[in-house]
Amino acid sequence: MIDIIKNIATEIEQDIINVRRDFHKYPELAYREFRTASLIARKLKDLDCEIKIGREIMDADTRYALPSEDVLQKEFKRAAAQGGDKELLEQVKGGFPAVAAIISNGAGPVIGVRVDIDALPIQESANEKHPPCKNGFASVNEGAMHACGHDAHAATGIGIVQVLMQLKDKIHGTVKVIFQPAEEGACGAFPIVQSGFLDDIGQIFAIHYFSQWKLGEITCVRYPGHLATAKLNAVFRGESAHAGGQPELGRNAMVAAANAILNLYAIPRNSNGGTRINVGTLKAGSGRNVICDEAVMEVEFRGQSDELKDYMHQNVIRVLKASAEMSDCKLEIIQMGSAPGGGSDDAYADIIMDYAQKTGVLKPRTEQRSYGSEDFYFMLERVRQSGGTGANINIGSAPGGKAHSPEFDLNESVLKDTVIFVSGLLLDIMENPRT
Amino acid sequence: MIDIIKNIATEIEQDIINVRRDFHKYPELAYREFRTASLIARKLKDLDCEIKIGREIMDADTRYALPSEDVLQKEFKRAAAQGGDKELLEQVKGGFPAVAAIISNGAGPVIGVRVDIDALPIQESANEKHPPCKNGFASVNEGAMHACGHDAHAATGIGIVQVLMQLKDKIHGTVKVIFQPAEEGACGAFPIVQSGFLDDIGQIFAIHYFSQWKLGEITCVRYPGHLATAKLNAVFRGESAHAGGQPELGRNAMVAAANAILNLYAIPRNSNGGTRINVGTLKAGSGRNVICDEAVMEVEFRGQSDELKDYMHQNVIRVLKASAEMSDCKLEIIQMGSAPGGGSDDAYADIIMDYAQKTGVLKPRTEQRSYGSEDFYFMLERVRQSGGTGANINIGSAPGGKAHSPEFDLNESVLKDTVIFVSGLLLDIMENPRT
Amino acid sequence: MIDIIKNIATEIEQDIINVRRDFHKYPELAYREFRTASLIARKLKDLDCEIKIGREIMDADTRYALPSEDVLQKEFKRAAAQGGDKELLEQVKGGFPAVAAIISNGAGPVIGVRVDIDALPIQESANEKHPPCKNGFASVNEGAMHACGHDAHAATGIGIVQVLMQLKDKIHGTVKVIFQPAEEGACGAFPIVQSGFLDDIGQIFAIHYFSQWKLGEITCVRYPGHLATAKLNAVFRGESAHAGGQPELGRNAMVAAANAILNLYAIPRNSNGGTRINVGTLKAGSGRNVICDEAVMEVEFRGQSDELKDYMHQNVIRVLKASAEMSDCKLEIIQMGSAPGGGSDDAYADIIMDYAQKTGVLKPRTEQRSYGSEDFYFMLERVRQSGGTGANINIGSAPGGKAHSPEFDLNESVLKDTVIFVSGLLLDIMENPRT
Amino acid sequence: MIDIIKNIATEIEQDIINVRRDFHKYPELAYREFRTASLIARKLKDLDCEIKIGREIMDADTRYALPSEDVLQKEFKRAAAQGGDKELLEQVKGGFPAVAAIISNGAGPVIGVRVDIDALPIQESANEKHPPCKNGFASVNEGAMHACGHDAHAATGIGIVQVLMQLKDKIHGTVKVIFQPAEEGACGAFPIVQSGFLDDIGQIFAIHYFSQWKLGEITCVRYPGHLATAKLNAVFRGESAHAGGQPELGRNAMVAAANAILNLYAIPRNSNGGTRINVGTLKAGSGRNVICDEAVMEVEFRGQSDELKDYMHQNVIRVLKASAEMSDCKLEIIQMGSAPGGGSDDAYADIIMDYAQKTGVLKPRTEQRSYGSEDFYFMLERVRQSGGTGANINIGSAPGGKAHSPEFDLNESVLKDTVIFVSGLLLDIMENPRT
Repeated sequence: MIDIIKNIATEIEQDIINVRRDFHKYPELAYREFRTASLIARKLKDLDCEIKIGREIMDADTRYALPSEDVLQKEFKRAAAQGGDKELLEQVKGGFPAVAAIISNGAGPVIGVRVDIDALPIQESANEKHPPCKNGFASVNEGAMHACGHDAHAATGIGIVQVLMQLKDKIHGTVKVIFQPAEEGACGAFPIVQSGFLDDIGQIFAIHYFSQWKLGEITCVRYPGHLATAKLNAVFRGESAHAGGQPELGRNAMVAAANAILNLYAIPRNSNGGTRINVGTLKAGSGRNVICDEAVMEVEFRGQSDELKDYMHQNVIRVLKASAEMSDCKLEIIQMGSAPGGGSDDAYADIIMDYAQKTGVLKPRTEQRSYGSEDFYFMLERVRQSGGTGANINIGSAPGGKAHSPEFDLNESVLKDTVIFVSGLLLDIMENPRT
Repeated sequence: MIDIIKNIATEIEQDIINVRRDFHKYPELAYREFRTASLIARKLKDLDCEIKIGREIMDADTRYALPSEDVLQKEFKRAAAQGGDKELLEQVKGGFPAVAAIISNGAGPVIGVRVDIDALPIQESANEKHPPCKNGFASVNEGAMHACGHDAHAATGIGIVQVLMQLKDKIHGTVKVIFQPAEEGACGAFPIVQSGFLDDIGQIFAIHYFSQWKLGEITCVRYPGHLATAKLNAVFRGESAHAGGQPELGRNAMVAAANAILNLYAIPRNSNGGTRINVGTLKAGSGRNVICDEAVMEVEFRGQSDELKDYMHQNVIRVLKASAEMSDCKLEIIQMGSAPGGGSDDAYADIIMDYAQKTGVLKPRTEQRSYGSEDFYFMLERVRQSGGTGANINIGSAPGGKAHSPEFDLNESVLKDTVIFVSGLLLDIMENPRT
Repeated sequence: MIDIIKNIATEIEQDIINVRRDFHKYPELAYREFRTASLIARKLKDLDCEIKIGREIMDADTRYALPSEDVLQKEFKRAAAQGGDKELLEQVKGGFPAVAAIISNGAGPVIGVRVDIDALPIQESANEKHPPCKNGFASVNEGAMHACGHDAHAATGIGIVQVLMQLKDKIHGTVKVIFQPAEEGACGAFPIVQSGFLDDIGQIFAIHYFSQWKLGEITCVRYPGHLATAKLNAVFRGESAHAGGQPELGRNAMVAAANAILNLYAIPRNSNGGTRINVGTLKAGSGRNVICDEAVMEVEFRGQSDELKDYMHQNVIRVLKASAEMSDCKLEIIQMGSAPGGGSDDAYADIIMDYAQKTGVLKPRTEQRSYGSEDFYFMLERVRQSGGTGANINIGSAPGGKAHSPEFDLNESVLKDTVIFVSGLLLDIMENPRT
Repeated sequence: MIDIIKNIATEIEQDIINVRRDFHKYPELAYREFRTASLIARKLKDLDCEIKIGREIMDADTRYALPSEDVLQKEFKRAAAQGGDKELLEQVKGGFPAVAAIISNGAGPVIGVRVDIDALPIQESANEKHPPCKNGFASVNEGAMHACGHDAHAATGIGIVQVLMQLKDKIHGTVKVIFQPAEEGACGAFPIVQSGFLDDIGQIFAIHYFSQWKLGEITCVRYPGHLATAKLNAVFRGESAHAGGQPELGRNAMVAAANAILNLYAIPRNSNGGTRINVGTLKAGSGRNVICDEAVMEVEFRGQSDELKDYMHQNVIRVLKASAEMSDCKLEIIQMGSAPGGGSDDAYADIIMDYAQKTGVLKPRTEQRSYGSEDFYFMLERVRQSGGTGANINIGSAPGGKAHSPEFDLNESVLKDTVIFVSGLLLDIMENPRT
């Protein structure tokens, strides 16, 4: 079977790479993946695959940190202008750029595969040696870049569907490949969970490339795994005044922010496990000689457990409030994305690693540590709630720059191997159910 | 004589007001007053007045805080598109939007009158009750506004030239009316001083309206007068890192900035007189989950004497350096504008106030306190160095919103009275030299 | 008359100096001037002078910052052991070490003279060159020192009484010489005012030596004069925890204090006049590896007007509260002493300076600036409320170390001259009433 | 054998308890355990046991954080007055209060047992319900208390020697029981290591009670075990000034300390493992109205590895330096105690736990986590360097208050059981060498 898959994958490899490069050239930020989602859906439809799209798999009310209507409209127009699929664009309009492929054949397990599709607010390197520049597919969308490989994840997802559709009669059960928007910021998984689309899934896994691991190394992230995280924006509002004339009339939002910054980083370490805190951005003030009347900061925090995340949350809120009070400012807290912490289920991860061992397509990697956070765990939690299981698969794709950097890149040969591995794995699991 | 002047002023009043409204509608920020300067020059030329313009009265090398070449070019195009004088624009190109009128008749004192012409980076109110909105001359340049009355100062300057040109034969000496750019930020006066244009001036005064003083009240700012000031930008540069993944690899420019903010405001009070400090704006960080690698802050400080300003300067530099070191960041300090502190010479101020008393055109105001800073004192210092004297005239123009606020406005009837007063004063001083 | 006074003063000079040295050797802190007060009272009684003492001139309920009963008792015992007057000690027991002399002869003005008698919590220099060491009268009370000349003020007051008692028949009216405890910390004047003892006084002045002014220079402090001040202690109470074991269980009073310190100093400058703020001492924490559960800080603030003092007060309270909240600590604020700001009445000061000019005993000093604060203004305010007037006299007594330093000293020859000057002034004013 | 041991232990139980209570009543801080050490040595000698004492087992030059000569002398006198052994006191004079018992019989392994003997700078509770109060052995040394059970450790050590001396002919090898001073602050182990006394030891273990674990539960601390730690004092020295008069002349050590506090706690978390930081105490300033010229803080930091401790160390130094610079202060850093991180060797710990299982004297505890730090690891590291092994034994002794709290206590019945267990273990290991 694996040889059949390998042949198909070889045939479609260039297509997959082209798709990745196209997505790379037109990166789209969270909730604005209109072009990307519409083209994915188009390709799936062209494969005669059943799809779900937009509001069908995305709950409207739990889309935290949604951009303004203005931004959504402007970006929608851009997406159309950049070759989004006319017909399907309508279905993702308004901030619903999610798509899923459903490949079903008879009774059997329902298995989910999640790939994410959004880009990052990073300006891509213009260095001529940077492969996307050299090969003409560097980002044309200013300030946006696929600097975390989600272009490749999306292309891989399409490749998997392509293989499975060709081998549809070999399937015993159902595969749902979910193309999720807004993973960066940890916003996109939750509304998909809330839509109910995962409720019949018994097994689920996510795929992520790591450009600083050796090409083709595979691992499943295990405990303590990814950190639980939550993100929020804090807005301090004071009162402006002429800084030379009557400084005593000001209520200084700049000072409120400064106090918050120092005290957020100073939240006590916790003996129950690792925590994180960051004030990533701050914009404050309107003019040099004006007491600052507004400061806006983007904050995130994490913990090795949900309890640790909650510990940080409580402290963050208290520090923000006290900082506002310190300068007699008002405080608005805007909750942004969040994700539970977690890691793969051991038994399921073992199945995946055994398959890697057995087939030799990818090579097991000893280290199972990861860092950062992943909103995929919202999905895995839901699947577990119905008695299911899952894993988070990481695959090495060196060489390539550091994730989230302007020089990020990956080795495109990982795409074909991953398509082979995942397609084979899915067929194998369905053929020989082990749980 | 005063009656003749009053008649002329009454004739030209509507012109002056129209000019003010035109300038108000097309506000231009520091060094970018291309349209304003070219139109002033055009009007002066149309009055057959001798003018000096651009590099003739502005030293290129001491223009601190000059915008980038890009900005200058873009703004130059805008100025042309908004009706700047085609021919004269060329002479202010590249960041030289200064103009002066020279009205000379025989021997006698050389007297300078300084008016400033630049706008502020403030978005004008869109409130329908705001007079510029009601009367259709609100700013059309986004983010720029004449919120400190420099539109009216410029129009007043033109009005004065108009009167004096009609009474040129009554003049015994020389009047130089200087239309200065870039007063906000305290950058424009110094390069004019450095051009040598003031070297033959024996008396000089500046005119400024205050919308929160009663209409027609006049005073000369006296000791302790305006504060000495200096402005600088501080850029902290650290190292970014994934805030969840490897926070220990970051060098946090956000924290450096926070320490700087708190410690700048905490610079000790000084028993020798008043001081001021402000961190007006801060922009820091690129993404929520990235350790901030760059923070840019706009700082200003003041003192009731140059010594106090220097005291603040020393402390500011030390705090900035230590804050950078605290987070292992690099620090760049970019010196922006500055101005000496000062006030009117008492004897000269008395002459002006006596003239007000005598003519009754404007009404002496008891309070002589002012606040903020003024780079006019660079001019006054130069004049004093050659044995001259001068004063800083403030005139009430209520009703009108708070200075530097989006609702700022002034009572336009102050323009005519000021034109009368200043023209009369100039003629009187030249007729009866008192020093 | 002045010659008679000079003769008397010359006779008693050595006595006065001996008294000063005795008080210097046994310095007593605020409310604990038991020995000093009892011995002053004894000397006054021995002169057959009418006295008021203890509760007679000191309201019990407004003695802020009173030490604990324990301390008072311990110090009372010490005072007795160090030669306090057995009989009179009883009358100042419990924290009432105030004494006043009343010298009255017929109708006439009632004039108050205030001298203060308390020492400072400073360890006196043991340097052999320090005159009190060289001459064997350095402080024997550990941690207490007359480092502000109140020993000399007290001796001067006694000298004045001595002169006036000898010339009692020359008096036309009443002189009240008030020996005030607890001036440092600004606590002693108010309870004396509240006792009603000043209610019949029409003129009042205080005497203070300055060791860094030339010997014999005299001035009256004039507007803006001394700063209004208030003092308070802030106690932050958190929760301790093992810093290595479970830091997350702590509520860190150390961090609360650190936030308070930075933000207190950063209270905005005020355009209405000078302000001051200081966190003088902080004691925090019990052990290196324990999260700090208590921090105690001594704070003071000042303003050039009572409004400015209140402005600071409001800000101080808000900062302290927010700092406590920042670390989830409890806050206790203990109000300590305070004093209104102020300066001499001009007309009355002129009388005094004229007298200096006329007699040549002391030499007028041009500079009238002072700094620091004085609770004498509570007294002056009360006298003004009943239509009276007053002044604050400062007299140079160089050479001598810096005030409030371990090396402080003064030129003892100033005592005789001051006794002459003040006695003469009092007789002169009563003889020739000018108000 | 175990039954013989039990009988002996039962006989001496009351003695051991009495010793513990005696030590508890006379607690002695680090390097000042003169009475304790001399009495331990006396008891060992009375048992005819060979001892080493003072400089014999303590290197003079590596005693970090030694108190001043004055303190040592004063405390030595106190120890003598409180019943220290006259003869043996001389041998621990000058800061060498270490003792070791050597029990040797024929060839065989050399095994070390370390118990610590110092008290903490904590004021013991005066609560009548607190058992030491109820039973009359509460601390009589103000500000010192056995709040971590070292009194019981010392008594246990003596008990073990007592048992082993009675069974000396059953010994096959050598037991060295080391009574270590100055464990709190992590100062005492290193000079003992440096003396060479451990160089022939092949196995070593420490004993520590935990009053919040069930009575008789035993565990060996395993990886990640105790944290590596280092401690230092930071002294900021600025310049004082009158806070009201000339605040601009001060260089404020209080502000330096405040910046240090906030920024030390804000040292970034490290993805390689847990870290800790604490500013335990701060003493700053001399008077309310004086700009603070000296601030002294006690700092400690820890890491789950020596690399993490070094990471903290680097950051601590940088923050302290920058904080000093911020206020133009001088900085002195005084290195205090330190300890490597670590845990028991697994194989050796297994031997100990097996013995517990087998004998049932103490009951194995599942949890092996510990917290805090232990300078015992200096000893274990040295033993490992010569190819040896060791473990850190923790034994539950509930009920009893929280460690390092004024209410700390322990269940005295743990002493007998521990004496039995350790004596039995030692004999068993020597009888049946397993490594």
